[in-house]
Amino acid sequence: MMVCDTGMPGPDTPAITTMLRGLVGQEIVIRGADRDLHSGMFGSAAVNPAHVLTKIIAALHDESGRVTLPGFYDGVEELPAEIKAQWASLPFSEQEFLGKVGLSVPAGEKDRSVLEQIWARPTCEVNGISSGYTGQGFKTVLPAEASAKISFRLVGRQNPDKIVAALQDFVRSQVPVDCKVEFSSHGASPALQLPFNSEPIRIARTALNAEWGKEPILMAMGGSIPIVGNFKRELNMDALMVGFALDDDRIHSPNEKYELKSFQKGTRSWVRILDGLAG
Amino acid sequence: MMVCDTGMPGPDTPAITTMLRGLVGQEIVIRGADRDLHSGMFGSAAVNPAHVLTKIIAALHDESGRVTLPGFYDGVEELPAEIKAQWASLPFSEQEFLGKVGLSVPAGEKDRSVLEQIWARPTCEVNGISSGYTGQGFKTVLPAEASAKISFRLVGRQNPDKIVAALQDFVRSQVPVDCKVEFSSHGASPALQLPFNSEPIRIARTALNAEWGKEPILMAMGGSIPIVGNFKRELNMDALMVGFALDDDRIHSPNEKYELKSFQKGTRSWVRILDGLAG
Repeated sequence: MMVCDTGMPGPDTPAITTMLRGLVGQEIVIRGADRDLHSGMFGSAAVNPAHVLTKIIAALHDESGRVTLPGFYDGVEELPAEIKAQWASLPFSEQEFLGKVGLSVPAGEKDRSVLEQIWARPTCEVNGISSGYTGQGFKTVLPAEASAKISFRLVGRQNPDKIVAALQDFVRSQVPVDCKVEFSSHGASPALQLPFNSEPIRIARTALNAEWGKEPILMAMGGSIPIVGNFKRELNMDALMVGFALDDDRIHSPNEKYELKSFQKGTRSWVRILDGLAG
Repeated sequence: MMVCDTGMPGPDTPAITTMLRGLVGQEIVIRGADRDLHSGMFGSAAVNPAHVLTKIIAALHDESGRVTLPGFYDGVEELPAEIKAQWASLPFSEQEFLGKVGLSVPAGEKDRSVLEQIWARPTCEVNGISSGYTGQGFKTVLPAEASAKISFRLVGRQNPDKIVAALQDFVRSQVPVDCKVEFSSHGASPALQLPFNSEPIRIARTALNAEWGKEPILMAMGGSIPIVGNFKRELNMDALMVGFALDDDRIHSPNEKYELKSFQKGTRSWVRILDGLAG
């Protein structure tokens, strides 16, 4: 399968995407008393599900930014040295990447670059959390329940079902006897990791090098292209992903653009790739 | 000042209320990036304010249920032995108290009874927490901000302003450089602790004993009666608080009631108290 719904790290640097991360989404609801309580009449003596939930979430990462769930890193491999070197050579500025959204200091795993974290490392993020009174002003309520939406990005051979089970086991082990916990699943799909050295990729590298005068980057995507995973799972069909989108294309947004250079050289790139594959 | 807006522990047990807890309410907003981010594109590398906030909240209590803020227990005194003995003798069932709201195991400070916790111990409760996407379904958003409403019940001579400062210092010390934090105050009033052995209380004890044939309990209220605190602060006027409300009166609720026995014996009780004070 050939896919051109991917990007390149800069306007002069062609790329082949070989890694798409997987995703696990879980919602957790922790319930205590059978109704919201008056914190002056019950506070401290009655379990507060917001306290229980925050303790659980706080324990999901250790001080070094790693995820603490047992077995979470099973199936995660280090990047090949060649890929690491390629990524290190990219004109990617962590300061600029973070600066565009008002930040300045990389968070997450202390010993990993930003690019490695968003392309090739598994992550765990709280996407939403809610408990008690959240409107304007103040109510001294002791909430009856607390909930969180938590997602994991997966890489390599991480098993989404095992990660769901590890999360649920961990939460259950932390919940006091007076709390009930409920989970709902919002997806559990594995990462897609294509072989770096397959014949089609070798051919695409040669073709892109010929067109752009530059060795293409073997890059990764932080998100996913669901159809690529489906084809892999249902038909065991690998994808060759070569696209020419740029970070500033504003994809799916107002005022979207596509560079003429990407259009013209992209067309020629695919002619070269098809010719190579046919040969 | 004489106040009868208080209760009694049971229909046959008169009480004098000598302790009203104080209250500190603080809202905390932690902000990271300047907009919500895509967790696949920024996850882990960009700071997640929900992670920051949950770590802070989780750290507010230690394993024994005590509040960890430096100096929090300054001004908190142990109950006099006489009061402890009185409370221990009350026909108060922790199982029943918690069972009415669907719970079974006391939470909070491990070495304190439920009654002591709700009447005479300072507490810290999350009243509300919110971050990211909290609607139906799932969004893999990396939230730009996270907020919590947190309240403290105060006892004895705890200083509300110092506790506000201790909380704010603690939060600021935990917030990474890429996060901004904002506080808003929703009240900071001290506890009211009347002397247990003043002349008016001695007179009221005698009067209640005469009317009910039983030594009155010197009880506490988990909540507060703001006007009593105002009179104390502005006029330095103590209150003698003797009321006859029962737990099942459904105060401020539909179908509220007041026992005829409370009305009749309460009237006579106050006649006896006034007579004693006049004497």
